[in-house]
Amino acid sequence: MQNKQWRLKQRPFGEPNSDTWEMTVEDVGEPADGEVLVKVEYVSLDPAMRGWLNDAKSYIEPVGIGDVMRAGTVGQVVKSNNDRFSAGDYVVGYDGVQQYSITDGKGLHKVDPNLAPLSLYLGVLGMPGMTGYFGLLKTGQPKEGETVVVSGAAGAVGGLVGQIAKIKGCRVVGIAGGEDKCKFLVDELGFDAAIDYKSENVKKALKETCPNGVDVFFDNVGGDILDDVLTKINMRARIVICGAISQYNNTTPVKGPSNYLSLLVNRARMEGIVVFDNVKEYPQAMQEIGGWVQQGKLKPKEHIVDGIDTFPDTLMMLFKGKNFGKLLLKVGESA
Amino acid sequence: MQNKQWRLKQRPFGEPNSDTWEMTVEDVGEPADGEVLVKVEYVSLDPAMRGWLNDAKSYIEPVGIGDVMRAGTVGQVVKSNNDRFSAGDYVVGYDGVQQYSITDGKGLHKVDPNLAPLSLYLGVLGMPGMTGYFGLLKTGQPKEGETVVVSGAAGAVGGLVGQIAKIKGCRVVGIAGGEDKCKFLVDELGFDAAIDYKSENVKKALKETCPNGVDVFFDNVGGDILDDVLTKINMRARIVICGAISQYNNTTPVKGPSNYLSLLVNRARMEGIVVFDNVKEYPQAMQEIGGWVQQGKLKPKEHIVDGIDTFPDTLMMLFKGKNFGKLLLKVGESA
Repeated sequence: MQNKQWRLKQRPFGEPNSDTWEMTVEDVGEPADGEVLVKVEYVSLDPAMRGWLNDAKSYIEPVGIGDVMRAGTVGQVVKSNNDRFSAGDYVVGYDGVQQYSITDGKGLHKVDPNLAPLSLYLGVLGMPGMTGYFGLLKTGQPKEGETVVVSGAAGAVGGLVGQIAKIKGCRVVGIAGGEDKCKFLVDELGFDAAIDYKSENVKKALKETCPNGVDVFFDNVGGDILDDVLTKINMRARIVICGAISQYNNTTPVKGPSNYLSLLVNRARMEGIVVFDNVKEYPQAMQEIGGWVQQGKLKPKEHIVDGIDTFPDTLMMLFKGKNFGKLLLKVGESA
Repeated sequence: MQNKQWRLKQRPFGEPNSDTWEMTVEDVGEPADGEVLVKVEYVSLDPAMRGWLNDAKSYIEPVGIGDVMRAGTVGQVVKSNNDRFSAGDYVVGYDGVQQYSITDGKGLHKVDPNLAPLSLYLGVLGMPGMTGYFGLLKTGQPKEGETVVVSGAAGAVGGLVGQIAKIKGCRVVGIAGGEDKCKFLVDELGFDAAIDYKSENVKKALKETCPNGVDVFFDNVGGDILDDVLTKINMRARIVICGAISQYNNTTPVKGPSNYLSLLVNRARMEGIVVFDNVKEYPQAMQEIGGWVQQGKLKPKEHIVDGIDTFPDTLMMLFKGKNFGKLLLKVGESA
C-alpha cells in the first residue's frame, strides 16, 4: 500500500511554485504501540497555509523543509494500536497533505458521518467554521440591525460569516470577485447585497449598499479593500482581522491600511483573531452551526477537487480567487 | 481695547505656512444679554489642531475659512451678562487663538486658580490630561507588571501617560526625539527607559528595553514608530491610537502600518480614541490627576511661549518636535 505525500521542498518567495513542493511516495508503514493509521479522505486547503510556509514568528511553528505539508484532514482509521480509536472510526485532525498518516492520535478527534457529511468537518464544522463563528460573534459583536461587511465573502470563512450575521438580524454585504460569486451570495446565501471588487468601485459600491455605514467589517483580504471599508465605518465599529489573502504572496512589504486613522475619528477597533484560542468552545459552536445547517438557515458551499496530484495547483486557486466556497482536496482513492 | 486674533485664511496642503493664517485686530466689543467677555490668558497648542484645518469628515467640524482658529483656552471673565459667570471668574473653554472672546458661555467651565496654576487646566487637568488618562486606563487597560510603551513621550499627552502607567505599576518605556527629552523622561518623570528615535534604531532599542515584549502601546506618532512597535507586541496587546503626528502634514497618503498583521498573530487590538467621549467623567479624572500632582507622583511639564504674534511659528514647534512638555501660548499682556 503506497502513500503519496506533498512535502515542503523550499520556502517560496512570493507565490508558491513548482520549486516549493516535492511529491514523495512511500510504503504505508505499520502503526507502533499507541499509534493509529488513518486513511485520509479530504485535505482542507486554507489561505492560512501560506503563512505556515514562512520562516517567521507566528501563532504556529512554520512547516519544516522536507516535512509533509501541514493541513487539516478528515479520514478513517484503518488500524489502531491506540485505546482511543478503533478501525472504522472517522477522525478529523492535522494529518497533512498525504493519503495515509500514522500518528500517536494526539490532535485527532472522532466525528460522526451520520450527523453531517464528512467534508463538512473541514468546513462549517471545522476550522473555517470556528474561525467565522468566533471571529464574528466574539470579536465582531454584531447587534441586530447593524451592517456587517465581509470580504472574501464567497470563501469558506466569508460565506459562513455572512450567513451567521443574517441569522443575527444584520444587514449583510459581501465583497467577492466576479459576477457569479456575487449572484450566489445574494440569491443563494441571502446576503442583502454583494460587491464585485473586480468590476466595481468598492468605495462607491459600499456607499450604495451600506446607507447606514459599516458597523462590523470581517476582513479576509486586506489591501485596498480594507482601506476602502475604513472610509465607511461607523462610530465604535469593529474590524475583525481574520486574514489578508491579498498580501500573502507579496514580494514587497505588506500594504498597511493608510486609512487606519479612521479608527481614531470613529473610536473604532481593529482586532486580530486566531481560531485556536477557542478550542474549548468548539463543541458548543459545532452544535449551533450544525443546527442551523439542519434547519436550512445556513448553506455550506464546498469546492472539491479530486486527486492528490493536483495539490500545488489546487492550493493556488485560493490566491487566485478561483475557489467558490470551501476548497477541499479529495485524496482518498475513488475506487 | 484691542483684540488680536489669528484666523484661518487658507487650508494648508502639507505644513501650515504663512499663507495659512491671517492676523486681525478688532476692537473688543460689548457682551450682549446672556453673553460673557473673557480675557484669554493661555492658548493651548495641540497636534489635533492640524486635523481641524482639513476640510474632511472627522470627529469635529473643520475650522471655517475666515474663522478665528479653534483652540482650548483659559482666561478670566472681564464682564458678564450671563447668570452663570461673574467678572473675575477664571474659565476654561474653546475661545480660540485670540486675546478676548465674547460668547454665550456654552462650553465655558469655571476653574479654581487656587487648586492648581491656571495653565495646568490646559495640560494635565485639561484636554491632554483627559486624553492620556482615559486613553490609557479605559482603552489601554494596563495591568500591574505589564510593559507600556508611549510615543511622543515628552509631549503633553505622552508624558502624562507614562507617569500614570508608572503609578499603575507598569514598566514604562518612552519614545522621544533627542537626548535631552530622553534623559528627562528617565531622570525626572521616572520612566524605566527612553528611546531616542532620532539617534537610535527603534526596533533594536525596543528589544533591549522591553525584554518581556509590549503589552500596551500608546501611540501619538504613527508612521515607522508604530510599525516598529507592532513587531514587539505581546499576545492580546492593546494599541491605543491617540494620534499620528508624523503623518499630519503629509502631502502623500498616510503611511499605514505594514505590520498590522501582527494584530492577527498576537490576537491584539488597535483602537482609536477621542477625548470628548469621556466628558461626563472629567471631574473624577481631574480630581485623581490633581491628587497625584499634589502628592508629587505626577510632574506636569510645560513649555510656555509668550506672545500671540508668534502663533504660526509656535504651533509648528509641535510638528518639528521642538516643544518639551505641554505647549502653551501666553496671549495675555504681561503688564
